[in-house]
Amino acid sequence: MSSDQDTPVDTDPEVQDEKARRRLIELAETFYDQFEGGDVPSMEIPTRTKSNIVFDEESGVWVLGDRHSTRSANSVRGAKKLLKSIYTVEFLATQLDEDRSSTLRELYYLSESWDNEYAQFSSQDESNQLVEDLELVSGVTREDFHMRPEESGATIMGPLELREQTRRGERVIHCQKDVGEGGYQIPNNPDTIEFLEHDAAFILCVETGGMRDRLVENGFDEKHDALIVHLKGQPARATRRITRRLNDELGLPVAVFTDGDPWSYRIYGSVAYGSIKSAHLSEYLATPAAQFVGIRPQDIQEYDLPSDPLSDSDVNALESELDDPRFQTDFWEEQIGLQLEMEKKSEQQALASRGLDFVTDEYLPTRLAEMDII
Amino acid sequence: MSSDQDTPVDTDPEVQDEKARRRLIELAETFYDQFEGGDVPSMEIPTRTKSNIVFDEESGVWVLGDRHSTRSANSVRGAKKLLKSIYTVEFLATQLDEDRSSTLRELYYLSESWDNEYAQFSSQDESNQLVEDLELVSGVTREDFHMRPEESGATIMGPLELREQTRRGERVIHCQKDVGEGGYQIPNNPDTIEFLEHDAAFILCVETGGMRDRLVENGFDEKHDALIVHLKGQPARATRRITRRLNDELGLPVAVFTDGDPWSYRIYGSVAYGSIKSAHLSEYLATPAAQFVGIRPQDIQEYDLPSDPLSDSDVNALESELDDPRFQTDFWEEQIGLQLEMEKKSEQQALASRGLDFVTDEYLPTRLAEMDII
Repeated sequence: MSSDQDTPVDTDPEVQDEKARRRLIELAETFYDQFEGGDVPSMEIPTRTKSNIVFDEESGVWVLGDRHSTRSANSVRGAKKLLKSIYTVEFLATQLDEDRSSTLRELYYLSESWDNEYAQFSSQDESNQLVEDLELVSGVTREDFHMRPEESGATIMGPLELREQTRRGERVIHCQKDVGEGGYQIPNNPDTIEFLEHDAAFILCVETGGMRDRLVENGFDEKHDALIVHLKGQPARATRRITRRLNDELGLPVAVFTDGDPWSYRIYGSVAYGSIKSAHLSEYLATPAAQFVGIRPQDIQEYDLPSDPLSDSDVNALESELDDPRFQTDFWEEQIGLQLEMEKKSEQQALASRGLDFVTDEYLPTRLAEMDII
Repeated sequence: MSSDQDTPVDTDPEVQDEKARRRLIELAETFYDQFEGGDVPSMEIPTRTKSNIVFDEESGVWVLGDRHSTRSANSVRGAKKLLKSIYTVEFLATQLDEDRSSTLRELYYLSESWDNEYAQFSSQDESNQLVEDLELVSGVTREDFHMRPEESGATIMGPLELREQTRRGERVIHCQKDVGEGGYQIPNNPDTIEFLEHDAAFILCVETGGMRDRLVENGFDEKHDALIVHLKGQPARATRRITRRLNDELGLPVAVFTDGDPWSYRIYGSVAYGSIKSAHLSEYLATPAAQFVGIRPQDIQEYDLPSDPLSDSDVNALESELDDPRFQTDFWEEQIGLQLEMEKKSEQQALASRGLDFVTDEYLPTRLAEMDII
C-alpha cells in the first residue's frame, strides 16, 4: 500500500515478500508483548462503513475515517477471533516464506486441517473478513500476502511493452505485437509487472467485452495510441491496480467508458474513487484522475440512442448515488437528474444504431477532445 | 461446421469467409427462385427442442433430429420473419465482404438504422434466434459469419506453440514461454489458430479460476505435460471449440475437472456432448471423448471433503439430469444416485482441506491414472 506516487513499484518479489512477512510477524509480536505484560490481548480495527469513509484532499480518493473498534480477548467471541487471526498470520507468514500462494476460498477450506477446532472458520465470509482486517491492521495488501482473488483480471491491448515476473521466470510482452486478438491477460498481482516502453497517449477503460472488441477491431488503439483496458463489468482488484499504476507511473490520462446506467456509474466510481469495501486500499487501487467518457444520459438524448426504461431498482440506485459522496459533483448531479427525468438508460453498444464505426470515428474522438485527452 | 475430423481446420481467413458468403448468397437465391417460380417464399428450419435431439452413433454427440418447421410468407408474421432474414443475410454478406465483424448485440441495435421498419428487430432475443436459424439453414457457424460472442473465451496454459491469424498479422505464441501467469487468451474465433508444435500428453479443462491458478502455481502443466484450459464456469463457444480441435487435431485425451454439483455436471455435459441450444453445432463444439475427472460424489464421501447440503434446486437439477439422455450411463446414474442419497455437494477447492498440494500430488494423478490418461 505505497502512497509514493512518483517512484515505480518495486517489482522484486523478494523485497515485497519480506516486507509483508515482517508486518505479519510484528502483529504477532504485539500479541506476544500484550501477554508478556499481563494484558488481555486486543487489536484495534478501523470501522468499515459508509459513515466512516472520508474524502482525502491530498490523495484525491475516499479513504477510511478515524473510527476504530477494539477486538479483545476479554470475551469468548473476541478470543476466538484473535485465535483465528493468529492461525491465519502463521499460515500467511509460512506461505510467504515458501513462496506459495492461495485463494481466499482455499484458506477457508484449509482451516479445516488446523489442529485447533476453535481456529477453524465457520464460513468463507468470516475468513474473507479476517483477511481484510489483516490488510487494515498491517498496512499490507492481500496480494502482498500472496492471497489470490477468485475474480480474474481482465486484458490490455495497446502500445505498451512490459516485463512480468512469473514463477517460471521473466516474460517481456508487447501488448499489441506479442499477443493475439484477445490481448494481454492481466495477472492476479499486477505488481509483478514492470512497464518498459510505451507509445501510449492515454488509457481507455472499457466496461463490456463487446465494446472492447469493437475498439480493437476498428484499430482505435493503433490510430489514437490508446491503451485499452477491458474492465469486464465491475473490475477486479488487479484491473483497478494496473490502471492506477499506468496513470501514476506513465503519467497518462485515464478515461472510463461504460454503459449509461447507475450500475455502470458505480463501476466508474470504483475505478476513480475506490469502493466502500476496499476504502482502506483506495490509495493503492483508485485512480482519482480517471474521467468519465460516457455513456452520459445527455448522450442518450443528443444521439437519440436506443434505450430501455429505468426499472424501480435503477431509480433507487440513481437516488442513492445522489446521496453518495463520490457522486456529489455538478457533473453527476446534472446527469443523474436528467436521467431520472428521461427515465431511460442505454448500453455502450447502442451506439451501433448509428453504424459500427460511429463510436470510433465520431463519438469517442469528440468526447475525448472535449475532455482534453486527445 | 466441418465434420471432417482428421484434417486440420483451414485457418486461411479468405477461404473461410468466401465459403460462408457463398452459403448466404445461396439462401438468398432460394428466395429469389421461389419468387421467380410464383411460389410463396418459405424456409425449412429444424426444430430445436429437447425432444428433437438424438444421439448420433457415428460422431458420438447429441445432434438435432429430423423434425422441421416451415417458415412461410403466407402469414404476416412469417413474411416479417423472412424480411428480417433477408436484411440480416445482406448485412452478414456485406460484413464478410468488407472483412468486418460485429456482436449479436450490435446487430440488434444496428437494425434500427435499416430503411424498412418491419425489418427491424423488436428484441435481442429475436435477432439472436434469427442468427441461430441462419446457422441451421446455411450450415455455417456464427463465427464464420464474423458474429462475435459477448461471452469471451478463456485461457490456455501448457506446452503448445500456436499461430494466431489476427487482423494485425500473424502471431506465433507458446502457451507457456510467451505468456504471463494469466496464460494465453483464447480469441473469439479459435479457427484463426493453427497448432504448430506441442509436448502435451493430455488436456485438462478446469471449471474455476481458483483451481486453474492452483494447478499453474503447482506446476502441474509442466510436471505432467498438461494443457490446462480454463473453462470459466459454463464455457464460451470459443473455449469448447478449441477443446474439440485440440482433441481432434492433436489426438490428445481430454479430462474435465469441475465442482461436484449438478450445475458442474452440465458444464461437463456441454463440453462432451453439446447443449440443447447448440445441438446443431455439436459436431463442431462437442468433444465426445472428454472424460469426467471429478469432483465425483464418491470423492466427497471417500475424501470426506467439506461440503454444503443440496438445495431444493440442486435436487431438482440432479433429478432432471437422470432424465437427460446425455447422463443416461452407468457412471452418472450411480454417482447422481449417491449424491441424492448423501444430500451433499462440494467444490473443487474443497480439496484444499487436505493441503494445497493434495490436488496435484494425490487427487489428480490417482484419478487420471485410473482413467488411463497418465
